[in-house]
Amino acid sequence: MLAGHYQSMLQGKSVIRELSEFATARGKEIGYENVFDFSLGNPSVPAPEAVTRTMVRLLQEGDPMAVHGYSPSLGIAAVREKVAASLRKRFGMPYEAGHIFMTSGAAGAIAHALRAVTEPGDEVLTFAPCFSEYVPYVNGTGAVLKMVPADTETFQIHFPLLEEMLSRNVAAVLINTPNNPSGVVYSAQTLRKLADLLERKSAEYGHTIYLISDEPYREIVFAGVDAPFVSAFYADTLMCYSFSKSLSLPGERIGYVAVSPACETGKTIIQMCGQISRETGHNCPASLIQLAVAEHLDLTSDTAVYETNKNILYRELKALGFTCVEPGGTFYIFPRAPEEDAAAFCRKGRDYDLIMVPGDGFGCPGYFRMAYCIDTEKVERSLPALRRFMAECYPGR
Amino acid sequence: MLAGHYQSMLQGKSVIRELSEFATARGKEIGYENVFDFSLGNPSVPAPEAVTRTMVRLLQEGDPMAVHGYSPSLGIAAVREKVAASLRKRFGMPYEAGHIFMTSGAAGAIAHALRAVTEPGDEVLTFAPCFSEYVPYVNGTGAVLKMVPADTETFQIHFPLLEEMLSRNVAAVLINTPNNPSGVVYSAQTLRKLADLLERKSAEYGHTIYLISDEPYREIVFAGVDAPFVSAFYADTLMCYSFSKSLSLPGERIGYVAVSPACETGKTIIQMCGQISRETGHNCPASLIQLAVAEHLDLTSDTAVYETNKNILYRELKALGFTCVEPGGTFYIFPRAPEEDAAAFCRKGRDYDLIMVPGDGFGCPGYFRMAYCIDTEKVERSLPALRRFMAECYPGR
Repeated sequence: MLAGHYQSMLQGKSVIRELSEFATARGKEIGYENVFDFSLGNPSVPAPEAVTRTMVRLLQEGDPMAVHGYSPSLGIAAVREKVAASLRKRFGMPYEAGHIFMTSGAAGAIAHALRAVTEPGDEVLTFAPCFSEYVPYVNGTGAVLKMVPADTETFQIHFPLLEEMLSRNVAAVLINTPNNPSGVVYSAQTLRKLADLLERKSAEYGHTIYLISDEPYREIVFAGVDAPFVSAFYADTLMCYSFSKSLSLPGERIGYVAVSPACETGKTIIQMCGQISRETGHNCPASLIQLAVAEHLDLTSDTAVYETNKNILYRELKALGFTCVEPGGTFYIFPRAPEEDAAAFCRKGRDYDLIMVPGDGFGCPGYFRMAYCIDTEKVERSLPALRRFMAECYPGR
Repeated sequence: MLAGHYQSMLQGKSVIRELSEFATARGKEIGYENVFDFSLGNPSVPAPEAVTRTMVRLLQEGDPMAVHGYSPSLGIAAVREKVAASLRKRFGMPYEAGHIFMTSGAAGAIAHALRAVTEPGDEVLTFAPCFSEYVPYVNGTGAVLKMVPADTETFQIHFPLLEEMLSRNVAAVLINTPNNPSGVVYSAQTLRKLADLLERKSAEYGHTIYLISDEPYREIVFAGVDAPFVSAFYADTLMCYSFSKSLSLPGERIGYVAVSPACETGKTIIQMCGQISRETGHNCPASLIQLAVAEHLDLTSDTAVYETNKNILYRELKALGFTCVEPGGTFYIFPRAPEEDAAAFCRKGRDYDLIMVPGDGFGCPGYFRMAYCIDTEKVERSLPALRRFMAECYPGR
């Protein structure tokens, strides 16, 4: 018999995939350049040429037995040491190779982090709005994901609701800053308050509540925005990083878990990650890409376009009367829809070739996400469509 | 709190790792070239230059947004189609892209296949001797692995014991041919008999018993040995393939699940694999290596050395009086130890700088594995050590 659970998942419709299929079909009719596709969170700028050149050099000059050979289960030792050194230098905390576990992107990192610090039946709290894949990530561990409703004024943390939900059953809290889909960056005040609460509740319950910090957008922060380093606030932090967005390498599947050097159980957690891999069949990311990113830890793609696009879109949305928190990073913006049913709003937008994602899948109905990781020229061309859409569908608003 | 299960796995000693550490330490004393390290199943011949050249070309000439970009969750469509076409051509069965799911090596393939066709609590049967990682692979799914004892005469299947253990609770049977650690290839007779039994029991129990066929050594078969294509024998077969051994690319983490075109639920299983990935954080193998292997599906590394080494070792072991089934493929041989405690035998062997793995970890005590994926010159130099070892430790045998 087939596994009922996974079979039933097939029934679930992916809204984003449906939108993307619509955009592709519409693109065949009118040319994809005329579809204002804000649905997909794919980097729109290429990987730095230096990374590609390094991969070529490794392939041409490296020992093929090493470049194509097995990685140790925790990652290549020299790579882990370089990641630790880079974190030491940048964030002033005493990271060592023993704090680092190399993964297949952030998905792999979160899958390991969750399994390391939860038992089946435990609760994991996260905050709306959040990346929709947190649901299967947590389901796969046997733990239960609960979503703290959004503070829609700021998209920082709604602390009264968090405190209410932070029961004895909570093993871990999962955050994402800079945030997909809101684009908001947690302030130092938010992180301090969160750390204080987790420390207090850990003491009260007599067990550590771990903080899992999903940080694929860490390097995409806009001018003048303070993006504090989460692991500096709370000792028991497991940072989940990916190079997918910062180096535009989503298809290379490369990231890491870094436990805070202040976490007493941190090195044990990293060792446990190697055991978790044996059960999930994950093994390591490819040796080649481990070796390549280790040479470019302080580099990013030319991500300036995302800030340019944010500025254009934010200004226009405000001018059109949208309620909208200004993003501090990422390549997302998450305005409030002009009618309660954001799905209906997004459906209507399709008639203007505007592809936007309703907030329901992010746990925040009534809002919608625009992913502006597209050419600036296209963002600019989308503005008249947006204006017409609003004027015709929501007149007098 | 840390997850007790994974924490307790840290206590388990890996015999192979311990042996490997011994070999490395001893290598520092006397030069690694003087340590006859038969412990590791790593390909000893490099990847074909053509594969490396293709990777370089893709990096230099391909669109960086495609080469470094996300793969669809089931794998790149054109790659799946090429894999299907290659299987169609080679094995005469009507494979389509819809039968193929791209994975991170065989580990990823088995992890997906197991989750697709078992429910927690189900039993999975496999056959001793087997790859030791089958235990965590199955544990991770919530199913229970049971091992059918070996037919040590032939290392084919012990059918009376299999039939005894093939209860109503069995959801899947996991086989590995050519086999690690025995090197034995299942005959057409064995596969026919297995298929008949599974068909009969499936009908009797009213549910399909799936056959999961782990085939990383499919392309390493010695002269004169018939290696029948497992999926041709039994409709409900999930083949788990890896390019690690055939193309000497273990560090690239690339393989696939291919369901038999005759499997009625096959295409559903492949779709389910995409859902399973969402929970394990596996996602796809890197786009780059998917694209690269798709151009070299009919190529292998120069694996002739393995057969040369097998011939030398098998002849010597027989001459020394070992009971030993001649391998038909792989780069392993699995003789009977000259004393009951194979671990003691292997420990004594270290004094002669012979690094061999006791069969206990493969579910077959009293035997030991030699992995002869090393230079032929070293195999030849190991023979005097092997002779001295036997003469001094097991005289008059």
